Amino acid sequence: MTAKQDGRRRVVIESVRPEVDCGAFPIKRVAREWVEVEADAFTDGHDRIVCMLRHRQSPDGDWLETRMEPLGNDRWRGRFRVDAPGRHQYTIAARVDRFLSWQQDFARREDAEDIGRALAVGARLVEEAAARAGGADRALLEAWAQRMTGGEALDARRELALSSALEESMLRHPDRSLETRYGRVLDVVVDRERARYSTWYEFFPRSLVGDGDAHGTFGHARARVPHIARMGFDVLYLPPIHPIGRTNRKGRNNALEAGPHDPGSPWAIGAAEGGHKAVHPELGTLEDFRALCSEAARHGIEIALDIAFQCSPDHPYVREHPQWFRHWPDGTIQYAENPPKRYEDIYPFDFECEDWRNLWAELKSVFEFWIEQGVAIFRVDNPHTKPFAFWEWLIAEIKREHPEVIFLAEAFSRPRVMHRLAKLGFTQSYTYFTWRNTKHELTEYFTELTAHASREYFRPNLWPNTPDILHEYLQYGGRPAFMCRAVLAATLGASYGIYGPAFELLENEPRHHGSEEYLNSEKYEIRRWNLAEPASLERFITRLNRVRRENPALQSDWSLRFHDVDNEHMLCYSKRTEDSGNIVLVVVNLDPHHTQSGHVEIPLDELGLRAGRPFQVHDLMSDARYLWHGHRNFVSLDPHRSPAHVFRLRRHVGTERDFDYFM
Amino acid sequence: MTAKQDGRRRVVIESVRPEVDCGAFPIKRVAREWVEVEADAFTDGHDRIVCMLRHRQSPDGDWLETRMEPLGNDRWRGRFRVDAPGRHQYTIAARVDRFLSWQQDFARREDAEDIGRALAVGARLVEEAAARAGGADRALLEAWAQRMTGGEALDARRELALSSALEESMLRHPDRSLETRYGRVLDVVVDRERARYSTWYEFFPRSLVGDGDAHGTFGHARARVPHIARMGFDVLYLPPIHPIGRTNRKGRNNALEAGPHDPGSPWAIGAAEGGHKAVHPELGTLEDFRALCSEAARHGIEIALDIAFQCSPDHPYVREHPQWFRHWPDGTIQYAENPPKRYEDIYPFDFECEDWRNLWAELKSVFEFWIEQGVAIFRVDNPHTKPFAFWEWLIAEIKREHPEVIFLAEAFSRPRVMHRLAKLGFTQSYTYFTWRNTKHELTEYFTELTAHASREYFRPNLWPNTPDILHEYLQYGGRPAFMCRAVLAATLGASYGIYGPAFELLENEPRHHGSEEYLNSEKYEIRRWNLAEPASLERFITRLNRVRRENPALQSDWSLRFHDVDNEHMLCYSKRTEDSGNIVLVVVNLDPHHTQSGHVEIPLDELGLRAGRPFQVHDLMSDARYLWHGHRNFVSLDPHRSPAHVFRLRRHVGTERDFDYFM
Repeated sequence: MTAKQDGRRRVVIESVRPEVDCGAFPIKRVAREWVEVEADAFTDGHDRIVCMLRHRQSPDGDWLETRMEPLGNDRWRGRFRVDAPGRHQYTIAARVDRFLSWQQDFARREDAEDIGRALAVGARLVEEAAARAGGADRALLEAWAQRMTGGEALDARRELALSSALEESMLRHPDRSLETRYGRVLDVVVDRERARYSTWYEFFPRSLVGDGDAHGTFGHARARVPHIARMGFDVLYLPPIHPIGRTNRKGRNNALEAGPHDPGSPWAIGAAEGGHKAVHPELGTLEDFRALCSEAARHGIEIALDIAFQCSPDHPYVREHPQWFRHWPDGTIQYAENPPKRYEDIYPFDFECEDWRNLWAELKSVFEFWIEQGVAIFRVDNPHTKPFAFWEWLIAEIKREHPEVIFLAEAFSRPRVMHRLAKLGFTQSYTYFTWRNTKHELTEYFTELTAHASREYFRPNLWPNTPDILHEYLQYGGRPAFMCRAVLAATLGASYGIYGPAFELLENEPRHHGSEEYLNSEKYEIRRWNLAEPASLERFITRLNRVRRENPALQSDWSLRFHDVDNEHMLCYSKRTEDSGNIVLVVVNLDPHHTQSGHVEIPLDELGLRAGRPFQVHDLMSDARYLWHGHRNFVSLDPHRSPAHVFRLRRHVGTERDFDYFM
Repeated sequence: MTAKQDGRRRVVIESVRPEVDCGAFPIKRVAREWVEVEADAFTDGHDRIVCMLRHRQSPDGDWLETRMEPLGNDRWRGRFRVDAPGRHQYTIAARVDRFLSWQQDFARREDAEDIGRALAVGARLVEEAAARAGGADRALLEAWAQRMTGGEALDARRELALSSALEESMLRHPDRSLETRYGRVLDVVVDRERARYSTWYEFFPRSLVGDGDAHGTFGHARARVPHIARMGFDVLYLPPIHPIGRTNRKGRNNALEAGPHDPGSPWAIGAAEGGHKAVHPELGTLEDFRALCSEAARHGIEIALDIAFQCSPDHPYVREHPQWFRHWPDGTIQYAENPPKRYEDIYPFDFECEDWRNLWAELKSVFEFWIEQGVAIFRVDNPHTKPFAFWEWLIAEIKREHPEVIFLAEAFSRPRVMHRLAKLGFTQSYTYFTWRNTKHELTEYFTELTAHASREYFRPNLWPNTPDILHEYLQYGGRPAFMCRAVLAATLGASYGIYGPAFELLENEPRHHGSEEYLNSEKYEIRRWNLAEPASLERFITRLNRVRRENPALQSDWSLRFHDVDNEHMLCYSKRTEDSGNIVLVVVNLDPHHTQSGHVEIPLDELGLRAGRPFQVHDLMSDARYLWHGHRNFVSLDPHRSPAHVFRLRRHVGTERDFDYFM
């Protein structure tokens, strides 16, 4: 405050929540969600203040205002709804309200002389408001001001002064000249609903042919779309679809030298046929790809593309823009390394090169190219090995024109790095779920993901497996382990995905003992999969996805609560809708080998259940129904039958003799 | 990030601590303390970064830099010392260090060809550093670059490349062109030591004469100074010393009408003789006041003045600046009110008046006037009833010229309000200590005060009583209650104060049952005190203050830790110096009526004590010594003898047969 500013702005506003890093980054919501905002606002002395939440649906839209409610202890709360994808904004304004302050004192006055004199002061405030008002309000306020100091009995004038009609009128025409504005305007990135709730299936189109070496195409993928849709997935994610480099191509099982028929890794991008804007000829044409997108859309599925910013030595960029790469002193381009390992089939970009501006622009145009082809979801490969500033700029640029685009960050990195990528704009993020298997690990990690302030920007997408990661738990746990991880992913995460058909076909051979790589990884060869395999989890997953679709409680993450079970191998948690109209209670046996039993503690009050009355738990996977009593109930799970209950809780409304009385 | 900025700055810096409200407010330290700073800093990929803490001793001083140390998980820590009172600053800079990154990869290279090629890359980095360096370093680096690619054996060149000599040289001449600066420069208000550690005594000079109605003077106060000094106080705080209003003067016990000899409340400031820059004639002259200040200074005591910004109806401001007050519609000035109560002896300032700039300037000149008389400590009365912006401006203005000045905020208000006043600049703050009496209340409140982030700006000053507050605990607890509260204040708070002689003479009569006001309050009448009263706590307090002086552990607050005692009436805590060279352990019986006993749990490890060996606890109040064993020890306290042990912990260094072997 310098003497040049108006020192009479007496309200201060502090501790606004949500707010990410002092407003440096936006919070995230999806369309039609509410943003609940809290702040401390107060003034010196005992005057009453009015606190307004200001929001707008775009940075150049009109501000709308709603009054915040006091929570006590100088804390205020308000909320607003975000209607459509885009960048919304909010901030807070607060003022001393002289009329409310006057009214508060006035109500406590006892002495007649005192009351009379105070009425004169109040009438003056009402006159001032009349001068600010227009139309009907002005006349009304003028009349009231006159009555307050007129000839009526003191009691009648007192009643008028304290009437809610007068108060409301006064609040419509306040003196805002000394209002305080919070120092920051905060952003909300609003996405479409799929950003919060999505069900991903990843496959390699080239493995879609039943016959060993034949190369699957976009046409085969198109034919598989109805099947994927029936399983209940709504995002079909493809590894890179671009021409694959030949120089230093990797062979099967990551062999340094490829055989003549080895197809190479799709992540070694670029060949004579083109780079990041081209399609691998063996998959088909750009037209075929667009046809796949259309067919998917007809089935409620979106195609997600993998964007991996790196080049094979054959990529056209290497010839056309050698300045975008780092060079050895002998002038040759530096391949990727993690000494002593070399990755000679890959050239990373040099983001510190002098020509970085053109590099950025070109990489942005890659996204734009695929958006034009109809793609609106991108899974970004290793974003943590490219500068944060690049992604922040790129995502903001893309989303300004295309707010519907979803970016999934494939960063398996350190916590701060993953959080930074989420803050700077990635819509969803891969997580550590893949390595969180024990009760303690899962409880701690998912409490962090769903209850800490970081949930405002970090949206988890859970993967029990990926082409790069076959966790030990799946290697040794057999079919129950796959079921368990599927249930956990599908119910702990409103967004989850599997890499199939490896997942549903229980593929569990690592390259070698102690490795998390798949043996005969699809990254380096074409596989054939027997979808008719009797052990397949296809039906189980189909059911799981139907349960997700039918239970809105599972379509968002913030309501997650863990509940006590007196068995270290058993995990219990619930999710529910805001109105508690849909409550899902999950009990999982994490031990894939043995039956485990225990008592589950249900917080009846919290879930709106009445202590003395039974309630029904309906297992949506098996369709079994149980009648439970009280807060402590027994559960036993044989992993070889099913490692989990996914219960819908039904409160008792009639008599326990008839299940239909539960809803 | 727009395309116009340099997108090659790859390091990001986040979560800097300490930082108050995104840097809106400074943290506080006293001279010669350290500021420990932490931050997250990281880059994309696997490059190594260097993180520098930048600090300067004034906003226009030169930046000094120290390297921060990695704590793991992308967190870094550094520290700097603040030398002298004033406004210091700090911020952070971090960069990818290409040489360290190169070295990290280089160390892992195994292949001879690989090593040779990498040496050429490294030599180029060394040459670039040589070009940046001057003098001896330049020649040295040039020579090293040549050797790295020269004819020596590969092993020798490798050894050179990894040598710490080269590394240190390289770190002296880094390429900082793509360095990231943290977006904020953060402030530290550095005070002198008394801001952190001070011992306050408040008295009414007018009550210093033994004889009932006679009016004490600054001369009497001067005569009492050696006595106050002997008791161990270093701040002598006087209620307002200005002329007292006559219009509507309050009588004894706050009577609406004063008798002809009633002296009035010193907080009804201003009369014909002058206002806030004048001295009440019955206390003496300005010269007498300056003489009191000098005498106090000779005894190591500072005079603290009470600044209460309000006026009696007789204050010269009322006549000279009627525009600084609020008016009734009939043109008369509004007195203070809390309807239905009226305070007709007081006119508050109207900080919303049009002429607020002149009002601010005049009020600032009040502080300047008393600073000129030699006052450097102000206890500000009810700051929470004046605008926050006013205080923020005023304190910054005063401290720019007079960084030694200490402001104590007498705000007994809501938590947010008290914290805001501390943030915006008050050096010390009154607290809720006065109303925190139970073990649970004390533990919770002092954990908040000493362990939460707010400790960076909120410096508590603890008062067991004030002229306004005689807590129930003191009313009914007798002498043990006073002793207990004195020990708590003096050991929980590096700064504490008492209002005497009411405190040491155990004055405990409330005006009426249920009131916290003193009967026959000195605020409205002259009292006489019998300092020779045998029950006086004077010797107890003298001892307590000596213990504080001799034990640096008690001179700061952040080391406070509570320890378990298995008795709800007993509280145990410790404080220690940073090097643990001085450890004070306090055990208090909070029950003023009965002996209480319990087992105290001592965290031996944390206090540097060895589990198998006895240690000595030396009660600094009673001089008793006990030999304790292990982490659990028995304590029994009879409140009528002494309600507390104030132990100095002495670790065992020789044999337990001789107490002198403990230190």
